Amino acid sequence: MTYCVGLMLDEGMVFLSDTRTNAGLDNISRYRKMFTWEVPGERAIVALTAGNLAITQAVMSTLQEAIDNPETEPGDCILSAPSMFRVAELMGEAMQKVQHKYQDTLEQRKESSSASIMVGGQRKGGAQRLFLVYAAGNFIEATEDTPYLQIGEHKYGKPILDRVITPETPIADGVKAALLSMDSTLRSNLSVGMPLDLAVLPEGSCHFSEHRRIEAEDAGFKALSDAWSQALREAFADMPDEHCAPDC
Amino acid sequence: MTYCVGLMLDEGMVFLSDTRTNAGLDNISRYRKMFTWEVPGERAIVALTAGNLAITQAVMSTLQEAIDNPETEPGDCILSAPSMFRVAELMGEAMQKVQHKYQDTLEQRKESSSASIMVGGQRKGGAQRLFLVYAAGNFIEATEDTPYLQIGEHKYGKPILDRVITPETPIADGVKAALLSMDSTLRSNLSVGMPLDLAVLPEGSCHFSEHRRIEAEDAGFKALSDAWSQALREAFADMPDEHCAPDC
Repeated sequence: MTYCVGLMLDEGMVFLSDTRTNAGLDNISRYRKMFTWEVPGERAIVALTAGNLAITQAVMSTLQEAIDNPETEPGDCILSAPSMFRVAELMGEAMQKVQHKYQDTLEQRKESSSASIMVGGQRKGGAQRLFLVYAAGNFIEATEDTPYLQIGEHKYGKPILDRVITPETPIADGVKAALLSMDSTLRSNLSVGMPLDLAVLPEGSCHFSEHRRIEAEDAGFKALSDAWSQALREAFADMPDEHCAPDC
Repeated sequence: MTYCVGLMLDEGMVFLSDTRTNAGLDNISRYRKMFTWEVPGERAIVALTAGNLAITQAVMSTLQEAIDNPETEPGDCILSAPSMFRVAELMGEAMQKVQHKYQDTLEQRKESSSASIMVGGQRKGGAQRLFLVYAAGNFIEATEDTPYLQIGEHKYGKPILDRVITPETPIADGVKAALLSMDSTLRSNLSVGMPLDLAVLPEGSCHFSEHRRIEAEDAGFKALSDAWSQALREAFADMPDEHCAPDC
């Protein structure tokens, strides 16, 4: 399993992913699910992956091969594509190609080819955009109505996002909300695990202001997690005893 | 879909269920999912149901027929069974009988016979016990390590329970936690809906101290829901900006 979240705020974008993969409960590994490309000031792109690891790794390798190949047409490379929409299309096309190659043999073995990729970023002169590419290669885009996307185990971490994230949320609060959303997920689903990968892309900069791994022993993350637990317990203790109907 | 939660606290038991059923998104109805039996001072039992409605209704009718039939052996009736364990067994046996009758024809039509029933309560002289009966008729029991059970859409409402519920939680706090757990679920899953059914069974009483329906316009529930939203936002605003590693 996996949990990845991406926020698209007025001030910029926040991306957070875990690193746990598992084939059954008895085969747990650590794999990076965040992939970033940066041409500072020109273009910055983040992809977050969930689902069949062989599928998503093959998609990422396909995109990287196109970048590395000098004969690739500009429109077929995510680092020269004319729009973020085209970048999402390229992710989708790579997904279709990989699915086409393996879907049947996976199905024969009753294994899932399910996979999804969140991709977001900005190119100079364009707006920040955030997409979710499905296994069929089609994709949706985050809008101001719901300025975030999630992939993987999304349920535990959704309530906090729904309550605090709007396009106007400052980017520092967005980072906190993403971390707390991850914290709730880590507590409830063993198949989501530390360390985390965090990337922050301020609007208009095409340069990651923060891009780092958060290890299990990270003091800042632990302090935030503990403060949130404490705050929730205090908030709960302060709740009014007014669950009764007016007539009871 | 459905969300039902049952708590087993030192002070007593709390049961809460929603009332929404759906066959697809375009066929939504309201059905009671909480069934209670009470012989005041002698025995009180609550069953909460999730899954295929025809299956769970048939199980409830089967149990009720055994109660109504004067020829039923005492050990085969949930109101005279010698233990709550036997009550859970009877639920499981009724589930097996109903599944046996319909499982194959449902499967042929690619419809799910999936169902689960939470059953809890107390008989005079016995302890309060809480069980979760699966579609196969087998069941698990809540223990002090995890003094609650959930059925249906359990993920959204689990974090609050994990953070605040222990066996020592006062019963009034248990009611609040169950309502807030339901509130988080209602916000995130359209297939869980108001009104709610609430039952509270204090330890040793074999009598429901509270047993009522909470309508969508219930002022107390709305006040609790609003206060919780407000408290979460305030708690979030107070979170430290210390997500960075010590070296950043």
